[in-house]
Amino acid sequence: MLENISMGRVISDADYKVQAPELQYQLFCAQKRCFEKKIPLLIQVAGLSGGGRGYLINTLNEWLDNKLTRTFSFWADYDFFDNWPQEWRYWQSLPGAGKTAIFYDGWYAQICRQRACGKISESEFEKRIESYKELERTLTDSGMAIVKIWLHLDKKIFNKIERRRAKAKGLRAYTPYDKELAEHYKEHVACVEKMITRSDTVNAPWTLIDASDMNYRNIAAGQTVIEAIENAIALKEIRDERIAKAKPKVAKPISASASILKRVDLSATVDKATYNKELPILQEKVRKLSYEAYLKGISSTLLFEGWDAAGKGSTIRRLLAGFDSRITRVIPIAGPSREELDHHYLWRFWKNVPPKGHVAVFDRTWYGRVLVERIEKFTPVEDWERGYQEINAFERRLTDAGGIVLKFWLQISPEEQLRRFKERQVTPRKQYKITEEDWRNRDKWGAYEIAVEDMLHKTDTSYAHWNVVPSEDKRYARLFVLRAYIAALKKALKK
Amino acid sequence: MLENISMGRVISDADYKVQAPELQYQLFCAQKRCFEKKIPLLIQVAGLSGGGRGYLINTLNEWLDNKLTRTFSFWADYDFFDNWPQEWRYWQSLPGAGKTAIFYDGWYAQICRQRACGKISESEFEKRIESYKELERTLTDSGMAIVKIWLHLDKKIFNKIERRRAKAKGLRAYTPYDKELAEHYKEHVACVEKMITRSDTVNAPWTLIDASDMNYRNIAAGQTVIEAIENAIALKEIRDERIAKAKPKVAKPISASASILKRVDLSATVDKATYNKELPILQEKVRKLSYEAYLKGISSTLLFEGWDAAGKGSTIRRLLAGFDSRITRVIPIAGPSREELDHHYLWRFWKNVPPKGHVAVFDRTWYGRVLVERIEKFTPVEDWERGYQEINAFERRLTDAGGIVLKFWLQISPEEQLRRFKERQVTPRKQYKITEEDWRNRDKWGAYEIAVEDMLHKTDTSYAHWNVVPSEDKRYARLFVLRAYIAALKKALKK
Repeated sequence: MLENISMGRVISDADYKVQAPELQYQLFCAQKRCFEKKIPLLIQVAGLSGGGRGYLINTLNEWLDNKLTRTFSFWADYDFFDNWPQEWRYWQSLPGAGKTAIFYDGWYAQICRQRACGKISESEFEKRIESYKELERTLTDSGMAIVKIWLHLDKKIFNKIERRRAKAKGLRAYTPYDKELAEHYKEHVACVEKMITRSDTVNAPWTLIDASDMNYRNIAAGQTVIEAIENAIALKEIRDERIAKAKPKVAKPISASASILKRVDLSATVDKATYNKELPILQEKVRKLSYEAYLKGISSTLLFEGWDAAGKGSTIRRLLAGFDSRITRVIPIAGPSREELDHHYLWRFWKNVPPKGHVAVFDRTWYGRVLVERIEKFTPVEDWERGYQEINAFERRLTDAGGIVLKFWLQISPEEQLRRFKERQVTPRKQYKITEEDWRNRDKWGAYEIAVEDMLHKTDTSYAHWNVVPSEDKRYARLFVLRAYIAALKKALKK
Repeated sequence: MLENISMGRVISDADYKVQAPELQYQLFCAQKRCFEKKIPLLIQVAGLSGGGRGYLINTLNEWLDNKLTRTFSFWADYDFFDNWPQEWRYWQSLPGAGKTAIFYDGWYAQICRQRACGKISESEFEKRIESYKELERTLTDSGMAIVKIWLHLDKKIFNKIERRRAKAKGLRAYTPYDKELAEHYKEHVACVEKMITRSDTVNAPWTLIDASDMNYRNIAAGQTVIEAIENAIALKEIRDERIAKAKPKVAKPISASASILKRVDLSATVDKATYNKELPILQEKVRKLSYEAYLKGISSTLLFEGWDAAGKGSTIRRLLAGFDSRITRVIPIAGPSREELDHHYLWRFWKNVPPKGHVAVFDRTWYGRVLVERIEKFTPVEDWERGYQEINAFERRLTDAGGIVLKFWLQISPEEQLRRFKERQVTPRKQYKITEEDWRNRDKWGAYEIAVEDMLHKTDTSYAHWNVVPSEDKRYARLFVLRAYIAALKKALKK
């Protein structure tokens, strides 16, 4: 395939001097429209060494509005980043609504290089391609425009440039790895071909550019970005229209026999004496096992969802008593900030993915996408409906990286909730916990019930199972959670 | 000193059961007031190993509102963090307005341990104490409440606990370093004494707590936090009153003879032929030298300030053409975001401090504190007046860490500005650059002139010199900036 891209195109300096300023102005205007339409734009500039990625990025920076644009490179590898799934670094750097990010190399270039030199296996290579495709799908579904540019050089020109680079030693950082890679031109190009064939998707297509002529390279890249922006704007308009015309979703109640919530035995209790005896024993077990998991680099992501007043906060506090605070974080999730709203909804959760061996406890979670955002109509139907699959993919990334994902739904009856609301109203130190919103949510119990059932059915996976916790008796719920975490830790440690 | 803290205090379990819930409620309410008053609260929990820092932090987390509180620990050392000045990590984790951060160990504990085991020199130890004191001063001046708790144990109890920890090997991570430190109890305590004596300031005092009794430890720590909050609230009220009563600052014009701006020779020009010849040569020099600086780990922080339309953007673009985009970032500074406003004004700049060897180019800078914030009265006089000294200290930290700080003021005449404004109005691709605000700022030329003169006089330091750039002729300005950076790189590389 790469041999077939139109090689040898040239734009003369005289032509370039005419075309470049015109293109620059068009690009600048396109970026402004992108900003107005709140479309995030991600430009990945990858290619063979010597193809002029750096020069092209400098040119793009010169052409674009630097107030909206930021360039990221991921070439410096630190052990530090090995603590998270690969995508973590990229998520940190994604552009918000209307902003532009330029990624030097992007996410595919490195795995091609690594594969060409035999540093990763074929199956790892393919797995990574698939995970990045999945990432792109998630991002473009949410309205991001993704441009992927590959700067190519045929073998003759590549060798010529490499010889020049190798001579300019020292300053140009011609590393032994560069040399190794240059010697593997054929293997490298084969990997690139495979990668491009696999990841040249409709939503995030590749543009292959012959980089041997600088003028042509710049013009072709600029045109690609303009087209991608125009395409994204057109898609957004179609989407907005579709959403405006969409019929409201009629929630289907779930039959009692299929209901997960209705099957929960809420009569389960634990007496105080047993509780007082068991609690410290289980906490000590959690302490020991979570430290063992720390030493083995197994992270834990614990999710708490449940009705208002179901006891999420107090259960988390009992759990925490068993943790080493150096490796633990509680992340309370409230409404998103301005900056968070400007990003993909998973962005704020990716930021908080625990590093290897650490524990992250989420007090409410990404499931807000299919609960509150659905009920309150904060999010169009097509977006939250896609959420189930996106969430499953997200959790899969965490477990694939060796982590534990443990999900708890704390279930209580509406009667028990009412009792706890009333208690909160009369207890001075609990009054802050009860607000008008809680009462409003309570009125929507039925709608929430349907949303919760849908969620439990659609996101209960083998790798991230939902634990529905009978929480009518708080003591029972707390011991249940501790025991479930102990079991999950033991299972993970056995592997 | 440490022998004199009241050791051996004990609270019985029965008393604790009465006192703890009462204290918890008080603490909870105090934190709420802190939130309402928008005071950031930083609690540092340091102490000897075995003193129960982790347990105390868990207890505080149980007592505080977890929606407002976040715990950070800095124990895991990665090479990654060596790329920035020590404080960088801490700045990333500072609490915003109304929020609480708990720092496991905080910033002093590690240097005491390192000093006790001879891992850093006495002068390095003292330097670090001073830099952290300076940091605390900056933070408390901006209204942060800082609590510093040291959990102490006398030698007998410490040894007993250490023996127990050493036996529980594996899980409790009793490292060789722990052992080494335990053998240096006397040296360690001496370092701690010295550190505490030096850093026990009025604005961020130490509380020494005998940690041998868990009940007493928790109660004493809780009380300390409550007192600190109350103290911060009282200080804030006094401050608010003082600011409300403060007389408006009458800006003193600077005499022509003392004026730096008036001495600038704006007639300097470069003809087009010379410019076209020199530019690529200088760009290539910047490319080579900045890469050499990269290899040596010398970072560059380049600051651009100047009148509207003075040519900051275009000069930066010419500069960028000489850079490797993998190690370069342009940071355009506009009005602060909600989150940025909730933090110390230097927070957003600390976030963007370049790592070792990298280049950060600021298009407008922290000098907004003493320019726009002064002129537009966004900031009380006493705050921006303190800015000069805070900024000098900040830049000193960057150069102490081996970086280059290069500051450019782009100077033009009001007539030239008018000419460029008018040109922008009639050139389609420049129209976006000219706004109502630019015209309003132009009307305040005189007030800005005074502020700029003050800035140039008060922040022109030996380590971070102001370059006032005659920019009436853009070509001259661009070559000037390139040459100044080349000179600075050469000087730094010679060291």
